[in-house]
Amino acid sequence: MRADKKPNPVIGSGKHATVRLTAVTKKSIQDRERTMDSKHQQLFTRYQHTRKLSRDIVEPLQPEDLVIQSMPDASPIKWHLAHTSWFFETFLLKPFLTGYRPFQSQFEYLFNSYYNHVGPQYLRKNRGLISRPTVTEVQEYRQYVDDNIATLLTRPLSEATLNLLELGINHEQQHQELMLTDIKHAFSFNPLFPALADHQPQPQPIAALNWQEYAGGEQMIGYRGTGFHFDNEGPAHPVLLPPFKLATRLITNGELQDFVDDGGYKNPLLWLSDGWAWLQGNAIAQPLYWQQMEGQWHHYTLSGLRPLLQHEPACHLSYYEADAYAQWCGKRLPTECEWEVAAQQQPLDNSGLHLGRLHPHCGTDPASAQATLQQLYGSCWQWTQSAYSPYPGFKPATGAVGEYNGKFMCNQQVLKGSSCVTPQGHSRASYRNFFPAHAQWQFTGIRMADDV
Amino acid sequence: MRADKKPNPVIGSGKHATVRLTAVTKKSIQDRERTMDSKHQQLFTRYQHTRKLSRDIVEPLQPEDLVIQSMPDASPIKWHLAHTSWFFETFLLKPFLTGYRPFQSQFEYLFNSYYNHVGPQYLRKNRGLISRPTVTEVQEYRQYVDDNIATLLTRPLSEATLNLLELGINHEQQHQELMLTDIKHAFSFNPLFPALADHQPQPQPIAALNWQEYAGGEQMIGYRGTGFHFDNEGPAHPVLLPPFKLATRLITNGELQDFVDDGGYKNPLLWLSDGWAWLQGNAIAQPLYWQQMEGQWHHYTLSGLRPLLQHEPACHLSYYEADAYAQWCGKRLPTECEWEVAAQQQPLDNSGLHLGRLHPHCGTDPASAQATLQQLYGSCWQWTQSAYSPYPGFKPATGAVGEYNGKFMCNQQVLKGSSCVTPQGHSRASYRNFFPAHAQWQFTGIRMADDV
Amino acid sequence: MRADKKPNPVIGSGKHATVRLTAVTKKSIQDRERTMDSKHQQLFTRYQHTRKLSRDIVEPLQPEDLVIQSMPDASPIKWHLAHTSWFFETFLLKPFLTGYRPFQSQFEYLFNSYYNHVGPQYLRKNRGLISRPTVTEVQEYRQYVDDNIATLLTRPLSEATLNLLELGINHEQQHQELMLTDIKHAFSFNPLFPALADHQPQPQPIAALNWQEYAGGEQMIGYRGTGFHFDNEGPAHPVLLPPFKLATRLITNGELQDFVDDGGYKNPLLWLSDGWAWLQGNAIAQPLYWQQMEGQWHHYTLSGLRPLLQHEPACHLSYYEADAYAQWCGKRLPTECEWEVAAQQQPLDNSGLHLGRLHPHCGTDPASAQATLQQLYGSCWQWTQSAYSPYPGFKPATGAVGEYNGKFMCNQQVLKGSSCVTPQGHSRASYRNFFPAHAQWQFTGIRMADDV
Amino acid sequence: MRADKKPNPVIGSGKHATVRLTAVTKKSIQDRERTMDSKHQQLFTRYQHTRKLSRDIVEPLQPEDLVIQSMPDASPIKWHLAHTSWFFETFLLKPFLTGYRPFQSQFEYLFNSYYNHVGPQYLRKNRGLISRPTVTEVQEYRQYVDDNIATLLTRPLSEATLNLLELGINHEQQHQELMLTDIKHAFSFNPLFPALADHQPQPQPIAALNWQEYAGGEQMIGYRGTGFHFDNEGPAHPVLLPPFKLATRLITNGELQDFVDDGGYKNPLLWLSDGWAWLQGNAIAQPLYWQQMEGQWHHYTLSGLRPLLQHEPACHLSYYEADAYAQWCGKRLPTECEWEVAAQQQPLDNSGLHLGRLHPHCGTDPASAQATLQQLYGSCWQWTQSAYSPYPGFKPATGAVGEYNGKFMCNQQVLKGSSCVTPQGHSRASYRNFFPAHAQWQFTGIRMADDV
Repeated sequence: MRADKKPNPVIGSGKHATVRLTAVTKKSIQDRERTMDSKHQQLFTRYQHTRKLSRDIVEPLQPEDLVIQSMPDASPIKWHLAHTSWFFETFLLKPFLTGYRPFQSQFEYLFNSYYNHVGPQYLRKNRGLISRPTVTEVQEYRQYVDDNIATLLTRPLSEATLNLLELGINHEQQHQELMLTDIKHAFSFNPLFPALADHQPQPQPIAALNWQEYAGGEQMIGYRGTGFHFDNEGPAHPVLLPPFKLATRLITNGELQDFVDDGGYKNPLLWLSDGWAWLQGNAIAQPLYWQQMEGQWHHYTLSGLRPLLQHEPACHLSYYEADAYAQWCGKRLPTECEWEVAAQQQPLDNSGLHLGRLHPHCGTDPASAQATLQQLYGSCWQWTQSAYSPYPGFKPATGAVGEYNGKFMCNQQVLKGSSCVTPQGHSRASYRNFFPAHAQWQFTGIRMADDV
Repeated sequence: MRADKKPNPVIGSGKHATVRLTAVTKKSIQDRERTMDSKHQQLFTRYQHTRKLSRDIVEPLQPEDLVIQSMPDASPIKWHLAHTSWFFETFLLKPFLTGYRPFQSQFEYLFNSYYNHVGPQYLRKNRGLISRPTVTEVQEYRQYVDDNIATLLTRPLSEATLNLLELGINHEQQHQELMLTDIKHAFSFNPLFPALADHQPQPQPIAALNWQEYAGGEQMIGYRGTGFHFDNEGPAHPVLLPPFKLATRLITNGELQDFVDDGGYKNPLLWLSDGWAWLQGNAIAQPLYWQQMEGQWHHYTLSGLRPLLQHEPACHLSYYEADAYAQWCGKRLPTECEWEVAAQQQPLDNSGLHLGRLHPHCGTDPASAQATLQQLYGSCWQWTQSAYSPYPGFKPATGAVGEYNGKFMCNQQVLKGSSCVTPQGHSRASYRNFFPAHAQWQFTGIRMADDV
Repeated sequence: MRADKKPNPVIGSGKHATVRLTAVTKKSIQDRERTMDSKHQQLFTRYQHTRKLSRDIVEPLQPEDLVIQSMPDASPIKWHLAHTSWFFETFLLKPFLTGYRPFQSQFEYLFNSYYNHVGPQYLRKNRGLISRPTVTEVQEYRQYVDDNIATLLTRPLSEATLNLLELGINHEQQHQELMLTDIKHAFSFNPLFPALADHQPQPQPIAALNWQEYAGGEQMIGYRGTGFHFDNEGPAHPVLLPPFKLATRLITNGELQDFVDDGGYKNPLLWLSDGWAWLQGNAIAQPLYWQQMEGQWHHYTLSGLRPLLQHEPACHLSYYEADAYAQWCGKRLPTECEWEVAAQQQPLDNSGLHLGRLHPHCGTDPASAQATLQQLYGSCWQWTQSAYSPYPGFKPATGAVGEYNGKFMCNQQVLKGSSCVTPQGHSRASYRNFFPAHAQWQFTGIRMADDV
Repeated sequence: MRADKKPNPVIGSGKHATVRLTAVTKKSIQDRERTMDSKHQQLFTRYQHTRKLSRDIVEPLQPEDLVIQSMPDASPIKWHLAHTSWFFETFLLKPFLTGYRPFQSQFEYLFNSYYNHVGPQYLRKNRGLISRPTVTEVQEYRQYVDDNIATLLTRPLSEATLNLLELGINHEQQHQELMLTDIKHAFSFNPLFPALADHQPQPQPIAALNWQEYAGGEQMIGYRGTGFHFDNEGPAHPVLLPPFKLATRLITNGELQDFVDDGGYKNPLLWLSDGWAWLQGNAIAQPLYWQQMEGQWHHYTLSGLRPLLQHEPACHLSYYEADAYAQWCGKRLPTECEWEVAAQQQPLDNSGLHLGRLHPHCGTDPASAQATLQQLYGSCWQWTQSAYSPYPGFKPATGAVGEYNGKFMCNQQVLKGSSCVTPQGHSRASYRNFFPAHAQWQFTGIRMADDV
């Protein structure tokens, strides 16, 4: 327990020696950056920015916090830090950097998430048993990968290779969101209710929930620009929509409390059949992270346990809960097409993750002040009634990265928008997030829809 | 164990006395039928026909066979016999037949499947523990309900009430299919491999698997006629489809064996993520009911255990298996819209359940001889890649029958067509069957699709 | 569902033909009995008596009742009927009756309980899925075995063979008790609460609970006579006991209700650690078969659901419950040695199973009227604090019957005495019954002990 | 992830402020020690020695290692460090040190293992989710408790209070063994196979396995001295034993490999019924920590993964495995009385835990060189065929410490001796260790016995 000493990274067994940073790889990153062409430089700047954000996220945490895993669906923060580096090592350095020596041969297995093309994977539910490599060693691994990426970018690279690097950056952004949802889930089991942020939310007036109508008709959905997007956002294609309307903001905690107080969690008539079975099977009687204390609702947040913040958008709701709430209101959830068509008509709100806040954004952002629909982005992901299916003509990429999205197209619901823990620049109208209907630990909320 | 004696139906407790058939209710059904108006008569004929088919299905079975339940998803045959009667009693006799006395007060609870509007339900997974009422008592219950339905139809009834009767008939038809799939599943656990039918299949030449192209474009789907249909088949609405093509017949056992022999069940790259987890978690290495005996594939059928019938359409496949097979071929499964649009262009093959056969139909039916697509109906339900979702504008009926379809619209895949155990007259192009992706015990097969 | 017709016993597959009773085997049993020597005759009389009791037990039941299995620890009655016949076929007819043809080759596998020496076994938890052979076919199997046993006994047989026959008779007696405990458990899941017996219990005055002292010292335990006994009852051997005292009767339902009403099921301080975990894990809040109805305790009995019979010995208690009750009283349970030493000093009460009663005997039997300890036999098995271990020098028999008792000597507690559903002649002071500490479905009660 | 910074121990929530070490409590421990009377001084020396050993054990570990929990039966090392301090705080400081302020109010709940008298407990299986308090904070907690114990011992204390302190010391010794077994279990899931010790075992000649005979007869067992012992070791009492013999040493890995190679794990005839079910249910095919690599058996040890050390005593065996091995040899395991009677005739080998070794001791210790039985202590705990039951007249202590041993007297087997990770001074002939029959993760081995 020598907090100050650095023991051999993997004690005991000489077989698992890791590659040490050498003088060559340690050559100043700035030096190398100067030799890159401007396109590579630009990409490298974004790479470095993203890598730094991962470090910033874990800054207030202790090594102990980075090891724990609260459920198979969540991963230790340390695993996220390593896996995002594994992604660059596996898909960029190994195939494209001549002479690259892997940092540690066992990492290919330990930090592979689900890429069967690459090879077998360490059992997902046991990730929380992997105390070694330590946090310090994972930091060294990250540094080693960064150094080598810098070297790689000094060389001529094909468009396809650069696309993979961009995919890796977006992949790490997705894991940044997961780091925060996963540590929140893990901390919620601790009766000390640790806090990550120091946010002091102020009660705010809640805008009236209005309805915005849309004409429907033949519309295009899917990504149509020239920038980065995931394969599941295409091909863009026309759809036919009947007229519809959407609520102008998300449902608040206060509104959700009305549902709870009205016996919403005890009335099977409001729930999907699977949802009711899930409620019964898991003895769920209130939203995740809510608890009664001295007759008052509290909820655990990333700034600690608090009396229920009435004005904030309700979050951590499963699809089942979102659907039951909409039923209770006599409304429904939107389809992914409806949501996307409506969002196309608004400016993109480019706000994103704010480490001091980490609460669902509830006000009116400057960028969206004049927008019709509030909280499209940066607050809570919004469940749609659309199952996650391939768009017509969708073909996954060949090779391992083809496993990124396509193989999950079953038993998942599409979520649109983005949340308060989504990194800046990671939101767009065509984005298709997806989770199983029972998932609660993401920042997921409710925007209601209705027929016209 | 007095097989010949009739003890008190429910031994011991006087509290549970059942209503006995009285002279009044026993008054000849024919007499009453003569007093019905012709519309009621016509409906009653269909009612009687359906009720008789249930009796015919269980005819070769023993009382012992009717009690067993092989898994929570399946039910004892005796439960099906009682529940279909409960449906008529609950939704027609209790509300609309003045003075009706329920046969047995506890049956409301015992034979309620999932209607929360009606009240709580006996635990589904324990249905196989309910030896009482006996088979004989359930027959009496059925007779009692039939008598009372006859009486009901001598009276003037609203259109809505007649629609409920029609719903009840179609409901019993659905359970007739389930009786056969459930007893097949239960019998498959018995090393004596009991047989229900005496079918002697003859090897047949297998037609070449050809591809039929369709232009796509704007098409209508959903039920547009004036006859009976389930609420989930509407509203009819236009959709936009790209051009596509469909295989002209289903995949055969022989073709599926090629997949098995090629290691299809061992290659994660072919499977959806959930599908691979399902395979691993349940140690599945071949199709349901298949087993190796002395180096040769056999499969259990409703006519007993047999060497694999190569020419028959492959069935009892989960969505995961169907999808993996299509991946292996470099193809895909159809969407429900594609299937329906193609089927609209063909005559409806009105063949149906044949108690002496009970095998997937593999030949060319007279009605479909000149049709382009073979085996649309009467062979195997065909998995589509479409999740089961509400059509735009769908509203479930009010009251308990509103629970019939709507609350299952999550985590299910749509199946189109019908199977060899679907009763005659129960098939149509707009029919939307649905099961979870892992379900194997229905007669479910593969029709492949592809982009043009 | 032709209750009156006899179809082919195993439908469909010609491979599983059963042996038919022939003229030779049908030759009158009485004829053969006359040719037996007197020792064989005497044994055959007991054999026939036991076989008839099995038939008598199932007489009031329906075929449907004989198929159901409520938990892996219990078996369908039909299985018990077949398995007890399998025992005679496997251990007597196959090895010792020259030319014997097994009734059905698959039965060796289907009705083997746990004898690995004999071969693999059908999965215990799935016994309730085996509708075939039918009840009628099992009756024919029993008749076939009886005929052949009669033939066997016309021949000269070794002492060891006759001992196996006696073991088979005692084995069937054990299963007779299990038939009644298993059907009670299964019926308890039926909201119709079927009854097997027509018992009308009369409230009786309850004798005061007194304490009888014993001096302890060096005592012999284990079977020392010349009659039948199980291998686990020997070798007889001396033990050293401190002085002790035993309660003169069992704890009643009324006394147990005081424990329940005092919060006994909510106080962890009264329970063994495993017991409390069992309570929590299974949400147990009252004794098995007890339920509150309109503010009053009822319990399900083999004569139906009744208001709690206060004066009857409490039964269906797990070891955990028995121990917690004793803790609550500041007492303890006896050791098996204490119980046996005390019982040796009393006449054996030879009462036994009474099919019209089937309730724990609560009065004073004629035979025990002058006895100090009441209800040693014929009421409830009595939990001891002794784990089930081999006596010093114990060696299981060689061969398959060596698996009868020895391999269960771990994680079980010894029970002494016998119950109201133990067949007559099956009780003795040295008898060692055993069940895991959580078992509740046997007729198991509480006799308290204390140090002097 | 600031390894070098010390954030607020419990981030965010002001409610959980911990007591800080003040000048008064920090007053030099030596100063206070000088004011103790000699009996208190002596005890305090042992206290300090034990507390230091806990620190020494974790010295080579990283903070990440101290958080992980590999199964509900094991605990994180950090939890052990805190719980052993909780024991002193709860049973000594709170009741007996006037004015004592608990370090952190929530710790009473968080670090209570199973004392229902004290209050409810944090869910055992979730201990691995508690990243806070951090390792550093737990060290402060330990220091705080040590300071206050020093203060307590400057005051006059009753005999009973001093006995509780002695119990606390022995309690921490037990947890020291658990720290090592638990981290070994957790590390074994890591494909990097971390090592704690740097032991280089040398192959040694293996002494012949001889048999030592004992006459049996009336013998005393149980603790009869005046020193510390657990309540379950008494009362001492006479027992009657037949003659018996014991193997002079433990079974080695090499001997166990013969059993494995002979198909021991595939032959149900060798196993207890529960043992075989455990084997099947957990797919166990070799001893814990063994694995085949390139055709050779290896095992994971606290000095890393190694080719099987043939000469070392076999360990990490469940009772089921120990019993099956003995069956295979035609022998049996000893009873706890046999083991204790034999051990009484030998000098006590006072060797104990050696942090540089951490392997089962296989040689002949100086103290036992002339002893008949080798490896009674300091190598592997030795399974006995005796279930863990109360000795005649046993009464647990009143109050919470009465829960220490008594409530576990069900479904456990007694183990005798001690292991290579038992602290020095913690072994004696009357010691009764106990674990469930399936437990493998302790250092548990096989000494065989036989009848004479």
